[in-house]
Amino acid sequence: MEVVQVLHMNGGVGETSYANNSFVQQKVITMTKPITEDAITKLYCSTYPEEIAIADLGCSSGPNTFFVVSELIKVVDSVRQKICQKSPEYQVFLNDLPGNDFNTIFRSLSIFQNKLREQLGPGIGPCFFTGVPGSFYGRLFRKNSLHFVHSSYSLQWLSQVPQGLESNKGNIYMASTSPPNVLKAYYEQFQQDFSLFLKCRSEELVDGGRMVLTFLGRRSDDPSSKECCYIWELLAMALNDMVLEGVIEEEKLNSFNIPQYTPSPAEVKYEVEKEGSFSIDRLEVTEVNWNAYQNETDLSDALKDGGYNVAKCMRAVAEPLLFSHFGEAIIDEVFRRYREIVADRMSKEKTEFVNVIISLKKA
Amino acid sequence: MEVVQVLHMNGGVGETSYANNSFVQQKVITMTKPITEDAITKLYCSTYPEEIAIADLGCSSGPNTFFVVSELIKVVDSVRQKICQKSPEYQVFLNDLPGNDFNTIFRSLSIFQNKLREQLGPGIGPCFFTGVPGSFYGRLFRKNSLHFVHSSYSLQWLSQVPQGLESNKGNIYMASTSPPNVLKAYYEQFQQDFSLFLKCRSEELVDGGRMVLTFLGRRSDDPSSKECCYIWELLAMALNDMVLEGVIEEEKLNSFNIPQYTPSPAEVKYEVEKEGSFSIDRLEVTEVNWNAYQNETDLSDALKDGGYNVAKCMRAVAEPLLFSHFGEAIIDEVFRRYREIVADRMSKEKTEFVNVIISLKKA
Repeated sequence: MEVVQVLHMNGGVGETSYANNSFVQQKVITMTKPITEDAITKLYCSTYPEEIAIADLGCSSGPNTFFVVSELIKVVDSVRQKICQKSPEYQVFLNDLPGNDFNTIFRSLSIFQNKLREQLGPGIGPCFFTGVPGSFYGRLFRKNSLHFVHSSYSLQWLSQVPQGLESNKGNIYMASTSPPNVLKAYYEQFQQDFSLFLKCRSEELVDGGRMVLTFLGRRSDDPSSKECCYIWELLAMALNDMVLEGVIEEEKLNSFNIPQYTPSPAEVKYEVEKEGSFSIDRLEVTEVNWNAYQNETDLSDALKDGGYNVAKCMRAVAEPLLFSHFGEAIIDEVFRRYREIVADRMSKEKTEFVNVIISLKKA
Repeated sequence: MEVVQVLHMNGGVGETSYANNSFVQQKVITMTKPITEDAITKLYCSTYPEEIAIADLGCSSGPNTFFVVSELIKVVDSVRQKICQKSPEYQVFLNDLPGNDFNTIFRSLSIFQNKLREQLGPGIGPCFFTGVPGSFYGRLFRKNSLHFVHSSYSLQWLSQVPQGLESNKGNIYMASTSPPNVLKAYYEQFQQDFSLFLKCRSEELVDGGRMVLTFLGRRSDDPSSKECCYIWELLAMALNDMVLEGVIEEEKLNSFNIPQYTPSPAEVKYEVEKEGSFSIDRLEVTEVNWNAYQNETDLSDALKDGGYNVAKCMRAVAEPLLFSHFGEAIIDEVFRRYREIVADRMSKEKTEFVNVIISLKKA
C-alpha cells in the first residue's frame, strides 16, 4: 500500500464524509487554542511582519480546514488592532496528501473569505489561499518562506506502513499481543518520519518561525498501551470476527496494518532535541472523549448514540485505507460491527483519545 | 449567472472531459512556444535568480496543465546547463476558478514530477507546486512574488456577462445581428476586466518580471466579425432550432450570453499602454484550425471526423455554462445538433480560431 496515494479522509460533504464527521478533531483544535494563540501572538509581536505565511499541514477537507486558519487570523488581527498596527497580508497554505478533497475546500473558499471579512471588518489585509498537495515528510515550500506551521491530528500518520510486521498476526496496529519487533518497527518508522519532518520544516521556516503540532498520542511509556491502541483493537475485533465467518481471508487481515504511531510526549521531545533546529516552548497532554458529543446538549437522536458517533468518525478517517486493502464490499459490514463493539465498551469503560501538543520555535 | 462559480472546463478524465478534449489548446501552446521560450530565457538571463516563481493562470485540468509548466522549466534548465549555473528552485502556482478540477491535477502531480526529473536529470532544483483557486480579475498572489506569468486561452473569458444585453435576442455572443449597444457592452467589459488584470499582475510581479498571454481573439477591427463569432453563432443555431421545436423556451435562450470577448491585437495593445505598468516585447497573431487533428496522421476513425472533434472540444469548454442556464436535459441534444452543423460548415469554409499573443515585461 502506497500511503501517499491511499491515505486521505473521506471526501465530499455526504453522510460518511470527513467534513461531516470530524467533531472530535474540531474539539481538539478548540482545546489547543490557548497554545496556538500564545504561539502566533508571540510570533506576531516579535517582529510585526507585514506578511504572515501560515501553513496548515494535513488540513483535510471540511469545517476544520477553515476553522484553524480563521482562528489564527483572528488572533493576529485582535493584537494588531490593540496596538493600532496596519493588518499584515496573509498567505495561507493548505496542505494535505494528493488524495485529499481539495475541490470541496476550494469551492467553499469564497463563503469562508466573505465570512471572515464580515467578522473582522474592512481593516483586514488580503488573505491569499493556496492548496499544496504532497507529503509533509518531504519539502513542500521554499526555503525561509513560512512564519507559522500548524498541524493537528495528522503527524501520527506515518509515511508508510513499517517494514517487518509479518508477525503482527490478528492485529492491525500495535497491540498488547504484538511481538517486540513490531513495536520496534513502528517506533523506528516514527523516529525516521518525524525527524525528517522537523528537518524539512526547519528549512522552510524563517528564523523565529513557530510551529504548533498536535499528535494523537499517549501518556504511557508503553507504545502498546490501551489508551492509544484500543480504538484500533476494537476494529481488529470486527475484522477478526469476519475472518472467522469466512467473509475476509485470514491472510488479508494479517497483511493489513495501520500506518500510524501515537507517540508519548517524551518521544516527541526526544526527536525535537535530537534534530536540534527548534526550541520547545510548551509540551502538554490532554484527553478528549472518543465520543466528542458526550457533553453536548440539544443533540439529534442519532448523535446521542456514542457508538454511532465514534464509528462514523473512525470510518471517515480509515475507510480509504480499508477500501484499498479489503475492497468496497466489506466496508458497511465492518463499521456496523465496529459500532456495536464500540458502543458496548463505551458503556463499560472510560474511552479517551490522548493529545500530545508541542509548541516550537525555530532557534 | 455567477461566472466565478459556474465557469470551468469539464472536470475528470472521462469521455467529455476537458482533459481528453483540449488538443486545440495544446496546439496553440505549442505554436506559442517560441515566444514563451524567448520570454522566459530573457527573464532568467537578466538576473539568474536562485528561485523562479511561475504562475499559470487558467491552468484548467488535464495534460495541458503540466505541458506548459514542463516546457518553461525545460527551457530554463537548458540555459542554466549551458552556462553551468546551479538550477534555481521552482515555485509553480496553478491557478483557475474554484470550479476547476484541482483534485485531478493534484492526483497526477507525482507522475508528472517523476517524469520531469527523469527527463532533466538529477541536477534539477526542487519544484514546489501549489493550486490557487480564484479569479485572476483580482489579486491572487503576494506583492512582488512572481517572476513569470503564463496564460493561454483564458483571458478571453470575462469576469461576468456584460450588463445590458437584453436586445441580443436569438444570439448567445456578439454576432453580425447584434445591436451596437451589445457590442459596446461586451467591449467595455473586456476593457474593465483586462485593465484590472494588468493592474493586479503588475503588483504581483517583481520588477523585470514577464508575462506571455494568449487570447482567443480576432484580426479584424470588427468585434462581430465571423472569425471570432462564428463558432458561437453555430451553437446559437442549434439552440434556436430547439426553441422552434419547443424544447427550449425562447426567453431562456434570449437571456443566455457567453461571458467572453475575443479581442483584436490593437485592443490588447491599447489596454496595456493605457495601464502603463508593462512594456510590450512582442505582439503576434496566428491561426489554428477549429479541428486541431486536421493535419494529424494515424487517427482513430472518430478523430477523423472534424465535426465530432470540434463539438467535443466546445462541449468540454461550454457545457458547465449551458448546464447551469438550461439544465442537464438538453446538453446531449444540443451538442448532437451542433456537431452536424459544424461538420457541414467545415466542409464548405475555412474555419479557424485566431490567437492573439502578447509578451510583456514589467517596466
